[in-house]
Amino acid sequence: MGKNKLGVSIVGALGNDATLAVVGVEAMKAGLADRTGLVTELADFKGLGLANPDDFVFGGHEVREGDLVRSAAEYVRDNGVPTGELLAKLEPRLRAVSREIRMGTVSGCGEAIRAMASPAARRDAAPLRQQVRDLQADLLDFKKRNGLERVVVVNLASTEPAIDPPPEFASLGAFERLIDANPRNVVPASVLYAYAALDLGCPHINFAPSLGCSVPALDELSRRRGAPHMGKDGKTGETLLKTVLAPMFQARNLRILSWEGHNLLGNRDGEILHHPENNLAKVRDKDIVKKLLGDKAHSRVLVDYCPSLQDWKTAWDFIHFEGFLGTKMRLHFIWEGNDTMLASPLVLDLVRLADLAQRRGESGSMPQAAGFFKTPYLVDEIAFPAQMEMLRAYARKAAETPAAKPSGEGAAKAPAPVKAGAKKKVATKSAK
Amino acid sequence: MGKNKLGVSIVGALGNDATLAVVGVEAMKAGLADRTGLVTELADFKGLGLANPDDFVFGGHEVREGDLVRSAAEYVRDNGVPTGELLAKLEPRLRAVSREIRMGTVSGCGEAIRAMASPAARRDAAPLRQQVRDLQADLLDFKKRNGLERVVVVNLASTEPAIDPPPEFASLGAFERLIDANPRNVVPASVLYAYAALDLGCPHINFAPSLGCSVPALDELSRRRGAPHMGKDGKTGETLLKTVLAPMFQARNLRILSWEGHNLLGNRDGEILHHPENNLAKVRDKDIVKKLLGDKAHSRVLVDYCPSLQDWKTAWDFIHFEGFLGTKMRLHFIWEGNDTMLASPLVLDLVRLADLAQRRGESGSMPQAAGFFKTPYLVDEIAFPAQMEMLRAYARKAAETPAAKPSGEGAAKAPAPVKAGAKKKVATKSAK
Amino acid sequence: MGKNKLGVSIVGALGNDATLAVVGVEAMKAGLADRTGLVTELADFKGLGLANPDDFVFGGHEVREGDLVRSAAEYVRDNGVPTGELLAKLEPRLRAVSREIRMGTVSGCGEAIRAMASPAARRDAAPLRQQVRDLQADLLDFKKRNGLERVVVVNLASTEPAIDPPPEFASLGAFERLIDANPRNVVPASVLYAYAALDLGCPHINFAPSLGCSVPALDELSRRRGAPHMGKDGKTGETLLKTVLAPMFQARNLRILSWEGHNLLGNRDGEILHHPENNLAKVRDKDIVKKLLGDKAHSRVLVDYCPSLQDWKTAWDFIHFEGFLGTKMRLHFIWEGNDTMLASPLVLDLVRLADLAQRRGESGSMPQAAGFFKTPYLVDEIAFPAQMEMLRAYARKAAETPAAKPSGEGAAKAPAPVKAGAKKKVATKSAK
Amino acid sequence: MGKNKLGVSIVGALGNDATLAVVGVEAMKAGLADRTGLVTELADFKGLGLANPDDFVFGGHEVREGDLVRSAAEYVRDNGVPTGELLAKLEPRLRAVSREIRMGTVSGCGEAIRAMASPAARRDAAPLRQQVRDLQADLLDFKKRNGLERVVVVNLASTEPAIDPPPEFASLGAFERLIDANPRNVVPASVLYAYAALDLGCPHINFAPSLGCSVPALDELSRRRGAPHMGKDGKTGETLLKTVLAPMFQARNLRILSWEGHNLLGNRDGEILHHPENNLAKVRDKDIVKKLLGDKAHSRVLVDYCPSLQDWKTAWDFIHFEGFLGTKMRLHFIWEGNDTMLASPLVLDLVRLADLAQRRGESGSMPQAAGFFKTPYLVDEIAFPAQMEMLRAYARKAAETPAAKPSGEGAAKAPAPVKAGAKKKVATKSAK
Repeated sequence: MGKNKLGVSIVGALGNDATLAVVGVEAMKAGLADRTGLVTELADFKGLGLANPDDFVFGGHEVREGDLVRSAAEYVRDNGVPTGELLAKLEPRLRAVSREIRMGTVSGCGEAIRAMASPAARRDAAPLRQQVRDLQADLLDFKKRNGLERVVVVNLASTEPAIDPPPEFASLGAFERLIDANPRNVVPASVLYAYAALDLGCPHINFAPSLGCSVPALDELSRRRGAPHMGKDGKTGETLLKTVLAPMFQARNLRILSWEGHNLLGNRDGEILHHPENNLAKVRDKDIVKKLLGDKAHSRVLVDYCPSLQDWKTAWDFIHFEGFLGTKMRLHFIWEGNDTMLASPLVLDLVRLADLAQRRGESGSMPQAAGFFKTPYLVDEIAFPAQMEMLRAYARKAAETPAAKPSGEGAAKAPAPVKAGAKKKVATKSAK
Repeated sequence: MGKNKLGVSIVGALGNDATLAVVGVEAMKAGLADRTGLVTELADFKGLGLANPDDFVFGGHEVREGDLVRSAAEYVRDNGVPTGELLAKLEPRLRAVSREIRMGTVSGCGEAIRAMASPAARRDAAPLRQQVRDLQADLLDFKKRNGLERVVVVNLASTEPAIDPPPEFASLGAFERLIDANPRNVVPASVLYAYAALDLGCPHINFAPSLGCSVPALDELSRRRGAPHMGKDGKTGETLLKTVLAPMFQARNLRILSWEGHNLLGNRDGEILHHPENNLAKVRDKDIVKKLLGDKAHSRVLVDYCPSLQDWKTAWDFIHFEGFLGTKMRLHFIWEGNDTMLASPLVLDLVRLADLAQRRGESGSMPQAAGFFKTPYLVDEIAFPAQMEMLRAYARKAAETPAAKPSGEGAAKAPAPVKAGAKKKVATKSAK
Repeated sequence: MGKNKLGVSIVGALGNDATLAVVGVEAMKAGLADRTGLVTELADFKGLGLANPDDFVFGGHEVREGDLVRSAAEYVRDNGVPTGELLAKLEPRLRAVSREIRMGTVSGCGEAIRAMASPAARRDAAPLRQQVRDLQADLLDFKKRNGLERVVVVNLASTEPAIDPPPEFASLGAFERLIDANPRNVVPASVLYAYAALDLGCPHINFAPSLGCSVPALDELSRRRGAPHMGKDGKTGETLLKTVLAPMFQARNLRILSWEGHNLLGNRDGEILHHPENNLAKVRDKDIVKKLLGDKAHSRVLVDYCPSLQDWKTAWDFIHFEGFLGTKMRLHFIWEGNDTMLASPLVLDLVRLADLAQRRGESGSMPQAAGFFKTPYLVDEIAFPAQMEMLRAYARKAAETPAAKPSGEGAAKAPAPVKAGAKKKVATKSAK
Repeated sequence: MGKNKLGVSIVGALGNDATLAVVGVEAMKAGLADRTGLVTELADFKGLGLANPDDFVFGGHEVREGDLVRSAAEYVRDNGVPTGELLAKLEPRLRAVSREIRMGTVSGCGEAIRAMASPAARRDAAPLRQQVRDLQADLLDFKKRNGLERVVVVNLASTEPAIDPPPEFASLGAFERLIDANPRNVVPASVLYAYAALDLGCPHINFAPSLGCSVPALDELSRRRGAPHMGKDGKTGETLLKTVLAPMFQARNLRILSWEGHNLLGNRDGEILHHPENNLAKVRDKDIVKKLLGDKAHSRVLVDYCPSLQDWKTAWDFIHFEGFLGTKMRLHFIWEGNDTMLASPLVLDLVRLADLAQRRGESGSMPQAAGFFKTPYLVDEIAFPAQMEMLRAYARKAAETPAAKPSGEGAAKAPAPVKAGAKKKVATKSAK
């Protein structure tokens, strides 16, 4: 039975998405919640041998002080969901998970995030290599104490400022040398976390808009270590609608003249995005219309902070399009979704898919999971229906050749952490 | 060159959809319009040997007095599109097409339509068989005078009251006997038109919500005569969005609690739909949410008459859905489309696809065209992305085995009209 | 201190509006809620000597079984507001108020309401005069046991079917004779309640769309007994917006072509309104556009039942208007309000205003309160800004001549209940 | 009859608002348009002796090359309204008005406007005093050639960058000295135009967001010359709604948490506002929510350029508010108005009101016209209903003491233009 357990180590473990992912799974374990919102519960994905959320064991890193009981209570107070009654019942479970959370790092995260972090997380002065080793030590300790053979690491931390990746990110060798060279502010924390995880053979999911594992060097590492990875930027609301509606207009040969999107949100994410440098990272990923339609259409995506909304993302999209005989027509939509409630179940889906992929012997990026991301790594397909068809096709094929039992051998065979200067000895599993 | 010509005979030839389809094609011929809004102009459908709209020759039936110059002018006056300047340039062409329009029938169409028809069209007293023969004589005359080898007949007339098809519609034999028995008010005009066309070997498209060719007996006839057919009820706006958005919610395992749609329109369609019996036919086809989600979700579709809108259909859809941990969320959309401008180019697409199918030796209903209809005959797939994938797959296959040149042999070989008592001698081409 | 106490007897005492009015006031008494949403708390209404909600003592009638603890808990479960924590703290208070609630009557209320009532409330067989006496006995008992000198009676019960008032409602004499004649189904319960209250000298507020006190006979009674009254149909959401926006269009000389409103709600009100006869009453009151603009504009108001919304009324209004040079323009609004949370504080306002009016020696209908109602009795002004100016003007004048202390003498002097055949002896106070 | 003629000299005479104001009035003269959209045509303003639009004689200044026939044709092409047929009929009239338009100045207007101006209008190098004299010479010539006794000057030019008025604007004396001192880029063109007009005794209306006459020095001049003035920034759409809806929330004691407005437009105005410095001026005037609610509510106003919309301003406003028991609720509105069609008739209203005020012997700012402006000069009242009540009260009083016949004596008595150094001799008419 212990063999079925799956470790889930979350970066940003006290953030909203993490808090509700834990609340949700613990509520499922307690028989207090169903699985609405989990894609992998659909009939299309039966019989694949996916891990059961009931077997998830949570841990992670966080840069603020606190614990899950408090962050869940604040969430309920601010958002009105879920009920206080539910939280009360889960309190001992949340307290237990909180004990698995370690202090993380805000190295290279920019001022907005640094300002809200605990002093203990402001580790920019520590050598990068040391930071990586510390993160890995935490992960290994998490595995050991919980008797885990498999751990998936998920990044749910606040958006870092947009960066232009340095040339050293293009190959694993150069990347390793860069880590050892220890330059300041070049390697964002999201990349360090991804490196630490993949290097330990832990699959990595980057659900944040930060760079994370969307880096050639880390893709190379993923293939070497047999640890699949995917990112970046979860597709939960307005962008999801865009990637569903834009293909509709295209399929009808209607010319999109303008697509203007205005997103309002009021949670910590919104507050961080209030900083222009962090906002840029988000808006870049969201401007899917440009990717879909090129420069023919006028498009704009705004993400603005509106404190009273808390997590209730509210977006207005205006689509101006031209049809037959030059006739201009209009579509407006108003989306009122709770961002965290939309994101958390997808995080659980991705944990299951990453774990499945690893057990199936796959590595590198996970194109089958493209539909979960605004900027799916190494995938050109942006239309959501086509992306979901990719996932269904993967599932059909996977059902034919079931994965090895989650007995954990794979994880046991995972190579030792990379030490500087020792990388070449690692056997390449699936690099192409 | 005459061999390339394709006859397009429209039932409801002075209605908005018909008027703008003709205006659009004539504007294309004159180099005054592009092909935005035509699905068959997309890259996916190149190289199939589709008929060129420049080769379309229009004719048809209508039950009101008038001509295309007047109906086009009224359209511009009421809707503000297209420009009066364009119409002025097309006037001689519209006048010429008007000369090809014959008086139709409102037999079995209900009071609302009857009331707006010319006395000459109120032919309920004429024997059904005679009415069919008259329609066929008009079609044959249209072919002859214009030197046409191929004619596609399209139904764009106002919505008839919803009927429960009589048992005699289940097979061609019983249907023929019913026509000869000549009962009152049992066979709506849309069915008579479809019968007349298919029996002459002319493909038939029913873009209206009326019953038309969505009848087993006529499907049987279609297969015998080698004349493909498809219907019913063109999918242009709010329903299109539904069949795009509902699959999105399903793909994310979000539970739709309620889907409330309120459509307003002010054209003749809206006026006709003001009559409860006609409204019912429309609303039935539109309640796609019930078909998609079963009875789990509360759904309602309203179609109301709002005279000032004319053709500018305006719809509000409210979608209430439940996600993770029972969280209720919301999507609103407001659609502001010109119904006619959305419908007319699709009519041209369907004419091309029906003609192509006939030239490819196909018959019976056209599942590849399911995405154009609210209630695609004999097709269960309702999701628009999947429907379009069906069309693309058809096109890929068709591109491999191109159709015979549009030399019209097929049409020349078309069997003579069915005479009462002589049906059994007709060779069955593709009945299964 | 007992002299300050004000009795508030609610018809429909376990309905949503009543439940939340009580919850709100009890929360205020406990220092757990502020007074947001109470109009009479605005600076304009300071210094008038209005009763303090802290001094309200609740009682009332209800036709279903249950108590306030349960109805409040169901409200929170269904609507997510207010918090369960608040309810837990108020439980003893709600239990105490529940003990003051008596079984009412559904006499003349139509099938929809009858079907959800307790058998004990189905009193159609009892003589009308007896029903009135029973209600009055309950009120007198409520006063006595709580040591109350003043009681305001408020109707918050479900909407009764629309009726055309019989001619006997035109004068008090004819009305009394009708009550004694005891015809079936002619006098709806809302009228009986209003009669019972006014006859005892208790001011009456009819916040429901039912007929209630909007009857000449009862207005006459109000003037005789010195008990002010007002109705009908509280103006809380979409209609409020209409009476604010329509005057704006008029002030700009913009011609409203169409005003289409579609209301969705899912509470018991929505369920009752699902019955066409009850819906009619509601829609009649709501079609304020017709009253404002006459027949020039096309207007439609729909109220539909959408169970998942519960109390969260969601309305889309589409306003099509014409400006300079015949240009058609558009306004859409989408209102998402919690009907009960909007209504309850207004109920408290009206109780205060009715009590103030009585203490000021006023009687008959209360035109100053017109802005609180969709169909203000005997008031032609529909524009909300003008209605509020009426209230402010009343307040300015009232501030100059303060009301008598709420010492209750007025109530002490209130005439004895009218007995059949004894009406003429009652001194007329303010009949005109 | 010539005595009835009223000169209307427009700054920005080929802009959209100017073009359509002229088109509208000329269409009225030709019997081709009604007066929908003119506030002063409402019953409240009958019997005041307002000038008849049929008597308007148009002239003005413009900084781009062109004429009204072309600008009107471009307007119709881009916006679809009014019809090309109407323009064709008005062509000779528009040609005639075009001959009255003189080259203006872009002195102090910022780069965005400068870039689109004719070189002849780039007069920054000319002394300010000379520029004023040139403008005045044009006005006098306009009067003389058309036999006009009264001329109202209206600013409809593009928005200038926001400026902090220099201290010299605080009094007429200092202002005159500043003009003579001729500093660069301190005095925007809108102020020069206002000065030139008022100094000639011509009433001035500043409908643009630019500073214009909203300057103490010019108010002083207005009072001296007996030439009323008013500004700034016409209130046409989204802001109008705000000043109607915000008072509604306040009247119901509902707490506005956030008010987020996003305006899109695509005309030249939008293009100019694309420049951050010009946008600032606009957004400042629009943030009426801050003025109404102070800093308690979070508010944001965005004005973005969306080329395909042309003049069809489309705005989404999201209002988040809190009611009883802390319940958060929502209102969305979507406004789709043609900005020019909304503005032009108001311009005609203001011309009438300014002319009336002058004939009634009034001077200084016109508080009665506050409801026409986003930032009414010297008026604190922002609520539209209250502003309109001010206008109605003014009208009621004005109806009691009718204005002198428009015989032009007032204008004849207007003092001579101020000459530098000669100001003190001018009799003060109404300075306080």
